[in-house]
Amino acid sequence: MIVGMGLEGGDEKRRKSLIRWSPASQTSPLFGTAWPVDAFFGITTEPEGSTGMQDLERIYRDYIDCLNRQDWSRLEDFVAVDAIHNDRRLGLDGYRRMLESDFRAIPDLHFNIDFLVVDASKVASRLVFDCRPVGKLFDLPVNGRRIRFSENVFYRFSSGRIAQVWSVIDKSAIEAQLSEEEPAYFQPRMTQTPIS
Amino acid sequence: MIVGMGLEGGDEKRRKSLIRWSPASQTSPLFGTAWPVDAFFGITTEPEGSTGMQDLERIYRDYIDCLNRQDWSRLEDFVAVDAIHNDRRLGLDGYRRMLESDFRAIPDLHFNIDFLVVDASKVASRLVFDCRPVGKLFDLPVNGRRIRFSENVFYRFSSGRIAQVWSVIDKSAIEAQLSEEEPAYFQPRMTQTPIS
Repeated sequence: MIVGMGLEGGDEKRRKSLIRWSPASQTSPLFGTAWPVDAFFGITTEPEGSTGMQDLERIYRDYIDCLNRQDWSRLEDFVAVDAIHNDRRLGLDGYRRMLESDFRAIPDLHFNIDFLVVDASKVASRLVFDCRPVGKLFDLPVNGRRIRFSENVFYRFSSGRIAQVWSVIDKSAIEAQLSEEEPAYFQPRMTQTPIS
Repeated sequence: MIVGMGLEGGDEKRRKSLIRWSPASQTSPLFGTAWPVDAFFGITTEPEGSTGMQDLERIYRDYIDCLNRQDWSRLEDFVAVDAIHNDRRLGLDGYRRMLESDFRAIPDLHFNIDFLVVDASKVASRLVFDCRPVGKLFDLPVNGRRIRFSENVFYRFSSGRIAQVWSVIDKSAIEAQLSEEEPAYFQPRMTQTPIS
């Protein structure tokens, strides 16, 4: 998934593909991004079965990339078969349907990571969106208007996959933008005071 | 603040008070909670001026305790004088006024930490609330009804104090609870089918 194109999911295969990846290049052949040296060496020194913090950050960034490419066949590499989202036991299939529905509601949807906080088993992510949902979004009549909003979301990982999600989306920000006047092209102004 | 009751704020004093605290007891005299051994030794081995991850978690838990006690005179120990909250430069005084206003709107407000994700400079916190706001909350007519909701919030710390906050509150959860029927004490039911 990260370097072994054509590899199917599975933690053992994932780990092997990481170990095969030469640290000399320090560059991901898929995304062309530079990679810190200790991120590579961190993986090799960890005990079998565990997922390191830098590994988790990399998996998460690849997951977001998978969503943005709408590469649903790869979703199983990132999401557990019994995944829970906001207390709903969606499973992998339900999770995929949720995402597909999001992209129907927001055709230009793009997940942008503002920043992450990562520990041994969790990723906390600040996501920001700038998009034009076609109809209603969270019961709000957006109707193609451009809106910007954020999502603060936590993920618990198990065996390198998302097992549980706690997501809160800033609905108030969308409401505030919809209640704003559309900006006028020509705003009548009275800046001159009459000379007495 | 943590162990030196009567100590004023200041990172140097805070650090000294932590070092004075005997690791032998492993118990905070203020809150009576057991403390992991490595949390104490982590502090002593860190370079001057830095704030460790376990230190940051402890500071954050003390901050939440400060809010729950409404101990506003101690807020300066936790919040920077130029603190930013959701892009508003509230400063320490504005931050305090925001919290005081929260407690007026929700007299039984209590901040409950569900879980944390902590790195070298940030705390990500899942907060849960169970309370009875007196009037409107986030423009919703709660009017004393019991509601449960969550907040996903990030804090950037600088020199051991909260410098910036990104907070998103689950307004949709409150809306959903307000749209529910009040539970009936006696629900009329027709479970028996007539015997033909």
